Amino acid sequence: MALVVIGGNAAGLSAAARARRVDPRLEIVVLEKGPTVSYAACGLPYFVEGRVPQIADLAGYTPEYFRKERQIDVRTLAPVAAISHPRREVVLESGAQVRYEKLVIATGARGAMPRLPGADLPHVFTLHTLDDADRMRRFLRERQPKSAVVVGAGYIGVEVADALRRNGLRVTILERTQHALLRGEESFTAAVRKQLELHGVELRTGVTVSAIEPGAVAGVAGDMVVVAAGFHPNAELARAAGIEIGPTGAIRTDDRMETSLRGVFAAGDCAQVTHLVSGRPTWIPLGTTANKTGRVAGANAAGGRERFPGIVGTSIVSVFGMGFATTGFSAAEARAEGFSPTVARIEAYSRPRYYQGAKTIVELVADRATRRLLGGVVIGEDGAAGRIDVIATALQSRLRVDEFEQLDLAYSPPFAPVWDPVLIAAQQLLKEL
Amino acid sequence: MALVVIGGNAAGLSAAARARRVDPRLEIVVLEKGPTVSYAACGLPYFVEGRVPQIADLAGYTPEYFRKERQIDVRTLAPVAAISHPRREVVLESGAQVRYEKLVIATGARGAMPRLPGADLPHVFTLHTLDDADRMRRFLRERQPKSAVVVGAGYIGVEVADALRRNGLRVTILERTQHALLRGEESFTAAVRKQLELHGVELRTGVTVSAIEPGAVAGVAGDMVVVAAGFHPNAELARAAGIEIGPTGAIRTDDRMETSLRGVFAAGDCAQVTHLVSGRPTWIPLGTTANKTGRVAGANAAGGRERFPGIVGTSIVSVFGMGFATTGFSAAEARAEGFSPTVARIEAYSRPRYYQGAKTIVELVADRATRRLLGGVVIGEDGAAGRIDVIATALQSRLRVDEFEQLDLAYSPPFAPVWDPVLIAAQQLLKEL
Repeated sequence: MALVVIGGNAAGLSAAARARRVDPRLEIVVLEKGPTVSYAACGLPYFVEGRVPQIADLAGYTPEYFRKERQIDVRTLAPVAAISHPRREVVLESGAQVRYEKLVIATGARGAMPRLPGADLPHVFTLHTLDDADRMRRFLRERQPKSAVVVGAGYIGVEVADALRRNGLRVTILERTQHALLRGEESFTAAVRKQLELHGVELRTGVTVSAIEPGAVAGVAGDMVVVAAGFHPNAELARAAGIEIGPTGAIRTDDRMETSLRGVFAAGDCAQVTHLVSGRPTWIPLGTTANKTGRVAGANAAGGRERFPGIVGTSIVSVFGMGFATTGFSAAEARAEGFSPTVARIEAYSRPRYYQGAKTIVELVADRATRRLLGGVVIGEDGAAGRIDVIATALQSRLRVDEFEQLDLAYSPPFAPVWDPVLIAAQQLLKEL
Repeated sequence: MALVVIGGNAAGLSAAARARRVDPRLEIVVLEKGPTVSYAACGLPYFVEGRVPQIADLAGYTPEYFRKERQIDVRTLAPVAAISHPRREVVLESGAQVRYEKLVIATGARGAMPRLPGADLPHVFTLHTLDDADRMRRFLRERQPKSAVVVGAGYIGVEVADALRRNGLRVTILERTQHALLRGEESFTAAVRKQLELHGVELRTGVTVSAIEPGAVAGVAGDMVVVAAGFHPNAELARAAGIEIGPTGAIRTDDRMETSLRGVFAAGDCAQVTHLVSGRPTWIPLGTTANKTGRVAGANAAGGRERFPGIVGTSIVSVFGMGFATTGFSAAEARAEGFSPTVARIEAYSRPRYYQGAKTIVELVADRATRRLLGGVVIGEDGAAGRIDVIATALQSRLRVDEFEQLDLAYSPPFAPVWDPVLIAAQQLLKEL
């Protein structure tokens, strides 16, 4: 009996490690297409920035570690060409075959613009792997670029822009849509733009990039270019094996992270999960979900019985020290999901004024019909993560605004005002309902 | 028709202001025994510290403001001697009578040791009012004391100890019980003691203070003494008027903040509320509860219909920059309430190690029978407030540990690790259940 895991990063290794705990005797093989496993992908922008001094600080456990300490056979440079479920077999590109009884697919996601003309020019970068980060940092040191163009205003694009600006470069972000980060909303993008501009980064929205030229992108000059324009789930291998793909384009899973093929599980950025606010499928590739779904897939593949109910889509990104945090649905998203949303947006201080609080924006979305909370935004330099987590917890608990407004939150001048900004937003929202 | 409010601070003025919004034409009289109203009592330690430069920064609205802007008649130096409900009359110590139709009692709490021998010596202080803080600050400046004894290790005692130590004094805290701050638990007190000692403050527990001598308290020498030894609810006026007092010693209220006398409401530190984890009466005098119960009492007294369901007992105190946060019940308290508690305590980092996280202790308490979360502790220099608020939200939502462990919390290296410490604690707790 063997468990095979395709993919050796957050989801895949979480699955393998959890399977080992559930069944100490299970044979476990992890097949990773790249040269390394288990690195801290979310730390890459901070290595580019220079805050994380050594790339080794982001490297995780080695295949040797997994082999010796966990009895997990991790094979790197082992790209998979096909899954033959009738034969319970994974076929590598090398032609080698690996038999499985249970399979976890954790193939991740990839950049959405891999074939952009000019993408292979030496001054063009992506930021997915340790090598990418290393190469970028070396380029900064050796070539001393004065300007950069970042293609894409998603979280990686914005984090890279922040990192490059802190290295003294003139930075322009080009974004195809009208929006930045993970909230398709005008007021949110306006706040991101304001913070970027305050720190000397220009954000141009509605710009389609169709090619990279040696000295410029879409007419914007840049000594270096970073392409960070969205993700696609790596679902082709699964699709070719006859596994059902969901409406999001990612692999359909149930709440045990099992796919449409019995005994085959999927986890991480290649898998679709349930949005707990709507109850519908969603695909929001984030490290937290990768780790959690990996654990559940691994436990169940090893004979356990665990559930992953879903996500509420919580995220936070630091833009020059200011947290931009979102959870649940925006009003527009809620409307598209069939709710009748109403919104309150307030500005308040993160602490009493006499204790120098930071300006904090809180937006809450609720359903008029049920008064249920549907989503929220918190923007601020102090406490944004904790505040969005309170809203996320409320979403997951299906609280009504009336209940949310009654929350007994911690108060003390060094930490929060007596009426926390999230409660002020709830009071405002109650007036709108 | 007149609403009379006894007490002109957090609860009383919240009640008056809210009543005004509910009924723009109501006659509203606030009777305050002291010379000022509406000051930021929780800011007093930070004025003593010197961080808040002017005592005026802590003064709130004036009686003139309330009169002109809110049409609320705020009378200072108007101590109340008695309530005669059959006559719908409040009798002032001056002999004057004020008629009411609705009454809100917001008489607050007082120090538990008012008659300690030596309490009137010139080097002895309490810290309840702006005058107290002003006097203490002046003493520090003019007399340059080298050492201080603080009687009581509750939150005010610890905050004052912190403030005095930052002014260069040698500080000893004497505490009657074996515990510090708001958690009667050995490990919690050990953590408080460790942090105090790290910053040069000595905490002696199990010390009963029966008198203050000119140069020493219980054998500990001190150039100044601060008495901050617990609170008692000011419930005598209510009791004398025939209003029912609860088992906590505070005024019994229903979820509209109405007392046993129809039309008479109570709010703030003099009132008992419901603990939402046990469903039983509790008395935890804190500013958040004072403001919230004040609002509800005021709204209902003015003819509105609002509810205050209760609290979960959330608090946070900064001890030299480290947050000591608690919510719900400790294991011992949970046992006393009839639960069969189990506890998990973990130490983790507030951010990924490569991003210099701070050590964070999380303790979670759950009920074996129902798997419901009953309480939590968070101790750390980074994000303790947000993390305790997540636990508080979960308590108020009556989440089971299984649900709590699935929370979709925000992750990004500048803010939190991929597995937040509260989730790691939940994973640990699941193993114990």
